[in-house]
Amino acid sequence: MTRRRSPSHHIIESNGHSSRMAEFTGITPLVRSLPATVPFVGPETQERATGKRFWARIGANENGFGPAPSVQKALCGAAADVWKYCDPENHDLREALATHMGLKPANIMIGEGIDGLQALTVRQIMTPEKSVVTSLGAYPTFNFHVAGHGGRLVTVPYRNDREDLDALLDAVRSESASMVYLSNPDNPMGSWHSGADIEAFARALPDTTMLVLDEAYIETAPADAAPSSAALIDRPNVLRMRTFSKAYGLAGLRCGFTFGHEDTIVSFDKVRNHFGVNIMAQVAGLAALKDQTYLATVCEKIGNARRRIAAIGRQNGLEPLPSATNFVALDCGRDAGFSTALLQNLSERGVFVRMPGVAPLNRCIRISCAPDDVLDIFEQELPVALAAIG
Amino acid sequence: MTRRRSPSHHIIESNGHSSRMAEFTGITPLVRSLPATVPFVGPETQERATGKRFWARIGANENGFGPAPSVQKALCGAAADVWKYCDPENHDLREALATHMGLKPANIMIGEGIDGLQALTVRQIMTPEKSVVTSLGAYPTFNFHVAGHGGRLVTVPYRNDREDLDALLDAVRSESASMVYLSNPDNPMGSWHSGADIEAFARALPDTTMLVLDEAYIETAPADAAPSSAALIDRPNVLRMRTFSKAYGLAGLRCGFTFGHEDTIVSFDKVRNHFGVNIMAQVAGLAALKDQTYLATVCEKIGNARRRIAAIGRQNGLEPLPSATNFVALDCGRDAGFSTALLQNLSERGVFVRMPGVAPLNRCIRISCAPDDVLDIFEQELPVALAAIG
Repeated sequence: MTRRRSPSHHIIESNGHSSRMAEFTGITPLVRSLPATVPFVGPETQERATGKRFWARIGANENGFGPAPSVQKALCGAAADVWKYCDPENHDLREALATHMGLKPANIMIGEGIDGLQALTVRQIMTPEKSVVTSLGAYPTFNFHVAGHGGRLVTVPYRNDREDLDALLDAVRSESASMVYLSNPDNPMGSWHSGADIEAFARALPDTTMLVLDEAYIETAPADAAPSSAALIDRPNVLRMRTFSKAYGLAGLRCGFTFGHEDTIVSFDKVRNHFGVNIMAQVAGLAALKDQTYLATVCEKIGNARRRIAAIGRQNGLEPLPSATNFVALDCGRDAGFSTALLQNLSERGVFVRMPGVAPLNRCIRISCAPDDVLDIFEQELPVALAAIG
Repeated sequence: MTRRRSPSHHIIESNGHSSRMAEFTGITPLVRSLPATVPFVGPETQERATGKRFWARIGANENGFGPAPSVQKALCGAAADVWKYCDPENHDLREALATHMGLKPANIMIGEGIDGLQALTVRQIMTPEKSVVTSLGAYPTFNFHVAGHGGRLVTVPYRNDREDLDALLDAVRSESASMVYLSNPDNPMGSWHSGADIEAFARALPDTTMLVLDEAYIETAPADAAPSSAALIDRPNVLRMRTFSKAYGLAGLRCGFTFGHEDTIVSFDKVRNHFGVNIMAQVAGLAALKDQTYLATVCEKIGNARRRIAAIGRQNGLEPLPSATNFVALDCGRDAGFSTALLQNLSERGVFVRMPGVAPLNRCIRISCAPDDVLDIFEQELPVALAAIG
């Protein structure tokens, strides 16, 4: 006899009750309508599913060169202090960033990574009738937040593997969009625009459209890829977001910041979780910012790793795309089925990589920069995986 | 000539522009209407304002006995790993908690402290037309989240310095409330109800009212103050919330969890920031949970500190209220003006304490448990402060 495993049956079992409990009906219709899918599945989840460890963790654009020794020392030094609530004003890090960037503390808001700051930004602006413009295949977590508030997502195709500024602007105007998302340098393609073009784009936007300018990878980009820190600070409809997750190597600590017009920045205080930025995030962010020598060393290593990933790709017939980030997109020159099969095969060989989610970007696989011993594994397994999938 | 300091003048100066920029008008009317006030001002803010350090930090119900040595070791051990994103499923901690509590992982959701979990709970349920019941003087951060979503807060007075279960239930019914908040043991008074009374209260609630049962202080309470872990797990309208911030001494790491019916728990996945629980929070939470011996030692020390705070109060004519928490409310027997003056004077002497926000609770000051060297300072300064304010 086949055992019945319907969801309701499962719930009856798990409660140990003989009748199905009423679901709580007080959840808003919007939240009830949301899918339970998540923006990203973590490599740990895949490891648990297969029972095998990844030997090369080069899929999440993490920084395998790790945090500065000075940061690790600061974290150890703070371990005994974690009984204290963190400073809800994030004062020391905010001041240090202001000095570092030539801004005022009032222009800066610290948050739980760019993800947390985007959640708060969307929450302040989005209502179900509003539209949001982004590129087709850009950051899924931003889209997750927009959907979570019932926003209507309008997507614009990439053009030559870059976000298409003209088309984004056209869509903003034709849709009277409340927000537009732009990453520069871009994830998942690694491409970039000049700071001058970004600034012109921002200034061309209607006053009623908030630009979320995601600069997560700015430290690994050419110097002219960013407008100056102060360049757009006069625009209340521009929020630039940066993070300690990438070049600074602190992804697990959830420490990011946004900077912009002080009227826009202060509004975060109305909705944020005031004690939300972990004490370790504040300590590490401050220590990392002070160690610009280490940052420069890491950025050089990332540059070398980009070149090596590109060379490995070419040796195997995969064309590397130019990258201003800590990863390289390798163009497999085939369809998504091929990239997916390659990804899957690499995964079975202990190499964790990811790929863009939509066509035509999904002809690529995306390889994070990492130390040589990790890239050695990639170099060894890539030809084997390619041969295996034929 | 008096210098004009209107807000617009200030903004003109700060932008360095000759004309006032348009404010961004895309923020929702609800968010625009919110005050910029924060639920709590941190002691660091006070220290920066006065330029003086607090010698005794006994105002925020932190655990001055600190985290376990085993936790500190685990934090140091993880310092080199913070370049990795944290596991978005919080798998290991969730499994360990499930085992510890005799529940299934599906009954548990990890979050960025109880604050973060309450924010997500409110966000899933609250819309501007809905009402929420809480006690007058209960947790301000919960109220901050309700206000942030336009909820209408209905408050019920404490009765004999305890949250009034009958009156809360009456208010829920008469207001057809969508949510009711209850802390047990209670902050800011330290009082508690029996687990049996809590369970009866929960079962008497309409199915359409979500109970947020804040059990932040449960580890320091009498064993019979909590329903069993499984007692209310069949109720989709009950979310119990616990934290590593108090007895476990990890306030700065933002690690809490909620447990309840799996249909209710899974809904958090629709709105949470999936990578939001910091890697250090996960590591420390797991290590702290494993070290139940240290927890028992700390709880004993907290009991001793409660008795000592009570004795110090009595020596100075302040009546201690019974406490099941890691703090003691001392009844000054006068009005809020007196308590405020005492608080202020203690603050000037380097002693950070807080007091309840509303009458009649605000006849008390609230002293957190702490090691003897810290309570020595309180013992020394309290009579001086009382003499100073007359």
